[in-house]
Amino acid sequence: MMKMQMRPRAEAANRKQEGGRVAVVAGSGMLPRQVVDALLRQGEKPYIVAIEGEAKPSDYAELDIRPVPPARLALMLPELSRLGVDRLVLAGGVATRPPLRQLRFPPAFLLQLPRLIKAYAQGDDGLLRAVIGFIESRGIKVVGAHEIAPDLLAPAGPLGRVRPNRNDLRDIKAAAEAARAIGSLDIGQAAIAVGGRAVALEGIEGTDGLLERMKALRDHGRLAGARGGVLAKCAKPQQDARADLPAIGPQTIVDAAQAGLSGIAVDAERAMVLDMAETIKRADELGLFVLGMRESDN
Amino acid sequence: MMKMQMRPRAEAANRKQEGGRVAVVAGSGMLPRQVVDALLRQGEKPYIVAIEGEAKPSDYAELDIRPVPPARLALMLPELSRLGVDRLVLAGGVATRPPLRQLRFPPAFLLQLPRLIKAYAQGDDGLLRAVIGFIESRGIKVVGAHEIAPDLLAPAGPLGRVRPNRNDLRDIKAAAEAARAIGSLDIGQAAIAVGGRAVALEGIEGTDGLLERMKALRDHGRLAGARGGVLAKCAKPQQDARADLPAIGPQTIVDAAQAGLSGIAVDAERAMVLDMAETIKRADELGLFVLGMRESDN
Repeated sequence: MMKMQMRPRAEAANRKQEGGRVAVVAGSGMLPRQVVDALLRQGEKPYIVAIEGEAKPSDYAELDIRPVPPARLALMLPELSRLGVDRLVLAGGVATRPPLRQLRFPPAFLLQLPRLIKAYAQGDDGLLRAVIGFIESRGIKVVGAHEIAPDLLAPAGPLGRVRPNRNDLRDIKAAAEAARAIGSLDIGQAAIAVGGRAVALEGIEGTDGLLERMKALRDHGRLAGARGGVLAKCAKPQQDARADLPAIGPQTIVDAAQAGLSGIAVDAERAMVLDMAETIKRADELGLFVLGMRESDN
Repeated sequence: MMKMQMRPRAEAANRKQEGGRVAVVAGSGMLPRQVVDALLRQGEKPYIVAIEGEAKPSDYAELDIRPVPPARLALMLPELSRLGVDRLVLAGGVATRPPLRQLRFPPAFLLQLPRLIKAYAQGDDGLLRAVIGFIESRGIKVVGAHEIAPDLLAPAGPLGRVRPNRNDLRDIKAAAEAARAIGSLDIGQAAIAVGGRAVALEGIEGTDGLLERMKALRDHGRLAGARGGVLAKCAKPQQDARADLPAIGPQTIVDAAQAGLSGIAVDAERAMVLDMAETIKRADELGLFVLGMRESDN
């Protein structure tokens, strides 16, 4: 029902031109395959640009796929145009940022190099905006994963059986406040609060690294005896929704449970829940809440 | 010369009453002993309250010392009054925060319990303010370590032979901005920036934990090939300077070098450099800069 309701929006954002094709630039994690599945359901035949070292080519065995090292991604653009690609989705994680001197560009893009160098130093947001501008200057429209598959966006309210209690609500507020503060600095998207205060903030290591650290922190004297705690993941206020929306999935639930947390809160409609059914099943099994936060909630 | 210059300020802040004595509540690290040495130079005979599990009693072998478990610190206050203590210094780290139900108070303080419970949940600043109010309500003046030993405060400018280069200045700015942001949320005081952006933020694990993590992060794909980086430690805008001013020492330099950083920046006049001579010697040997930041610098 929800999917039917959202279909028109997906089709509007992802309108193909006569004979046009969509490319998925696939990084790590579950998101790219979920975007591909949504595209297949919409009758598209996506072309997969698999980032080497990030995407698993075997995940896309039945599709047209081209593995490309991160430093050579820009060289793909002229070829994608020749293949009739008119839309492109960036999906999945990219942990590797190749040294600038290794980057390769098609000759026509050399004029854009100074802009890219600047963006490269500005962090994720600046870089992603430059990459998107770069692609669109070639006449290929960049479409957000959430526009292809809007049912990946977290709805508002509790997603599973477990609901946050009063202590959890206090932790949600503290963790979300911290996550938004570091998001506005473009440092990370996630924070953990325990006992009403933020105790660990996501840096470049990502949410899985943060949760692993939290597991170790449980032994820290200042947390001794403290139970529960909440992971909050929030969209950066300034971020381009066409790349890098915060996401959680079944593994996030397992990691959060191992870190001793009571639950996870994400921005409703601005964060993605990958494999929603499995994520909620795990959360219910492990006794964690998963909450879609409305901005008015905190 | 500097010490002579600052002596009058120290004596003004730490003026003893007729026959009054000063107590040093000693946590971990080098700070308590440095405060004690400053007091001895000023002709005081400090009484040491050594927090069990934090202070090393052997550091104070020649002095009157009383080891006390963290949960029973409040019980010491009436005794300190009986001993003629009229001033008290809180110095050193306290990693342990005993569960609230284990805290013990003298009967007269039970009325303050609700305030303390609230402060306990509010994080370091709230807690420290409550503790200071708690002590001063007993007629004992709480004096800051930097008031006893003002020469521990970092002066402005480069403290050693090495000076930050242009890339370092960019990292200093990014790290200080991040450190101030998390400081204003009372989460931590330190951040590390590499390549012009913050990559790791201090949580409850402290600066040594942060630097250890940074060492591991060097292998992270997004930092591959990135050199240098800066640790910034800043005072929280709202913090009471009588406790928990940010501090670095010789070990911070060694840890920062092992984490591959180019240097350390601290707030001038608002952060402490413990064992300044040794700290600068190590920094010079290892080729790191140590900079006292003026607010106008960034």
